[in-house]
Amino acid sequence: MKKTILTISLAVLMAGAPCTAQTQSAVVEDFKPSSVNQPGKEFPQVNSEGRVRVQISAPEAKLVQLDISAVKYDLKKDEKGVWTGESAPQDEGFHYYQLNIDGASVPDPGSLYFYGASRWGSGIEIPAKDQDFYALKNVPHGQVREHIYFSKVNNSMRRCFVYTPPDYELNTQKRYPVLYLQHGGGEDETGWSSQGRAGLIMDNLIAEGKATPFIIVMDNGTWRMPERPRPVAQQAPQQAGERPAGPWPPEGWADGFKKTLLEDIIPMVDGNYRTVADPQHRAMAGLSMGGMQTRAITLANPEAFSYMGMFSGGSVSPEDLAGSPAFKEKMKLVFITFGSRELENRRAGFGGDPKENTEKLKATGMNAHFYVSPLTAHEWQTWRRSFYQFAQLVFKN
Amino acid sequence: MKKTILTISLAVLMAGAPCTAQTQSAVVEDFKPSSVNQPGKEFPQVNSEGRVRVQISAPEAKLVQLDISAVKYDLKKDEKGVWTGESAPQDEGFHYYQLNIDGASVPDPGSLYFYGASRWGSGIEIPAKDQDFYALKNVPHGQVREHIYFSKVNNSMRRCFVYTPPDYELNTQKRYPVLYLQHGGGEDETGWSSQGRAGLIMDNLIAEGKATPFIIVMDNGTWRMPERPRPVAQQAPQQAGERPAGPWPPEGWADGFKKTLLEDIIPMVDGNYRTVADPQHRAMAGLSMGGMQTRAITLANPEAFSYMGMFSGGSVSPEDLAGSPAFKEKMKLVFITFGSRELENRRAGFGGDPKENTEKLKATGMNAHFYVSPLTAHEWQTWRRSFYQFAQLVFKN
Repeated sequence: MKKTILTISLAVLMAGAPCTAQTQSAVVEDFKPSSVNQPGKEFPQVNSEGRVRVQISAPEAKLVQLDISAVKYDLKKDEKGVWTGESAPQDEGFHYYQLNIDGASVPDPGSLYFYGASRWGSGIEIPAKDQDFYALKNVPHGQVREHIYFSKVNNSMRRCFVYTPPDYELNTQKRYPVLYLQHGGGEDETGWSSQGRAGLIMDNLIAEGKATPFIIVMDNGTWRMPERPRPVAQQAPQQAGERPAGPWPPEGWADGFKKTLLEDIIPMVDGNYRTVADPQHRAMAGLSMGGMQTRAITLANPEAFSYMGMFSGGSVSPEDLAGSPAFKEKMKLVFITFGSRELENRRAGFGGDPKENTEKLKATGMNAHFYVSPLTAHEWQTWRRSFYQFAQLVFKN
Repeated sequence: MKKTILTISLAVLMAGAPCTAQTQSAVVEDFKPSSVNQPGKEFPQVNSEGRVRVQISAPEAKLVQLDISAVKYDLKKDEKGVWTGESAPQDEGFHYYQLNIDGASVPDPGSLYFYGASRWGSGIEIPAKDQDFYALKNVPHGQVREHIYFSKVNNSMRRCFVYTPPDYELNTQKRYPVLYLQHGGGEDETGWSSQGRAGLIMDNLIAEGKATPFIIVMDNGTWRMPERPRPVAQQAPQQAGERPAGPWPPEGWADGFKKTLLEDIIPMVDGNYRTVADPQHRAMAGLSMGGMQTRAITLANPEAFSYMGMFSGGSVSPEDLAGSPAFKEKMKLVFITFGSRELENRRAGFGGDPKENTEKLKATGMNAHFYVSPLTAHEWQTWRRSFYQFAQLVFKN
């Protein structure tokens, strides 16, 4: 602690000299390797302030930067050609980031990789005060299954991930409700179980008796697919989710995935898993673009679902109810969430004030909830917390 | 074709000038994006000769190289700062590679990532004449499940992947034999289903009636684990597989994984999946280090298995039989393989000539097979082909 105060004093004294914020500001020297580093890798690291420190050997480079949360931080080179530097304190939870080496944007070779921003790239965990709810614990664990299937709607092979609860294999007579859970724009079907930790959140909730065990289906809702079509024989399983033939989007931007979901995915899941195959035991939720898709699909097809959640993806307004009377009648849960920093930044402007809209829904007698994740932005910590709250309410009324 | 010949002639004429092989040799201009690129990425590309062409924007860089198959190829920069270049022709199949940017070794941001050489890094597919056997096709598909469990032997959470055949969920009375299938050194439990395509190979074999459907368990056999222990609560599921406490290796280098396999993994699998839980329906196979582990474990515990395969991992000699009489009695299949280039390079020197050893086993009356993958080295195409052959023989006698 003394060291920190001293460093701050020096920084204050030197404030008149030309310098950049990240090189001179106080840095608490208690960095530890990130929990999502590759095995055995010492960098990237995180300190108790939430700063991210990266390190890479690039003896011939002129400029190496850490690019995180839309800010670039210059690293410094030592005599051996190893570059090191750190960011300003970051919000708790998961962040995507990358390195820039002489103008090339590349993943950090020290981190594990995650799909976001339309690329596989580096991610880092800033330890959160509430991280216990998504921690890997010695409790009974469900399985996350890679499920490859043929989609008639898209005339292609697709892939989804399916979470089955811990007792699914042992209690083979039991049937389960199903949540269709969608990622955001620039993400894919891997997001919710990898950086979202949906499986671990469910395992922990079920172990504590806080959630009704349910199946989760995580598919690819991307509606702007890569331009280049490939014959099925050359597709890696990772390349599932093709743009259907014909005009696009056929009726609106959410309709492509709606058709795939209703005509291919739901029948495939009900045919291959022990689901309770009726709308009373079917939910849809999603983050950002996935939340907007949830809104569009449940408003247009309220007969197919009974619970819905939108995480950082807008809200449902009284006008929406007027346009979809069955939605008000059928939907047993409407769950709207945002990160507090999204509300501060007025990012939450999808069709009116989400809190006000949700209160108006409540006033009509609907089971509507509004949740705000403290001190997080349009990022995964908001969505982990949103899912944690949603999972305790869904399939319970 | 004319263009190619012309380029070759120019290269011959210019042979006296100082130049590097990769910049002046004939390059056939029919490059296509690799089948394991990230969605929408145009590079890396592969041409009909098997050359790999990479491209990356790095306007300020002095030197950018493609590093593949232990050779570094210099790229060339255009006026926009985009670097492009290609390798010599590569063998058919999958290869790990990386980029070097001013001395920094990083993954190519265009490719998907695979765990090998003790890191998550870039991979590329050189289309193979026989690629049909591991292609993604519209046939019934099994599932690959991420299974998290607690290991008493290691006192930690671990992760494995479990392949269940296409009819596993539909035919819920049926029980299946189990293959324990191990990766190589510097690889992990993701290798066989990702770059190894074990699930797709099985799906295709089962669809053609060429293999007995079986369960495959792919765990982490790494015996030199990262030094840094982590509390369970901070472990990502990717970090499973901890080094046990006490002296290491306790009796020999394969024994750490042997204890985990026999005491934790096999009982866990028999307790959670519909296996035929006896040694007559249990096999072990592996590649390289995983093959050496298979050899050590099945020779030491022949009562636990009935089939074994070693892919590029040595062989079983008559001396081994003398030291393990029960192995000769119990083992219904011994399957030894190598890539032809491994034999050329005499890499196959693990304890005597593998072909000769296998013929000696045959002469004793054992069901021993020796397979050579044409024109491949110590790489995944050898192991895909080895598994394809092995899967058609195992659990059949």
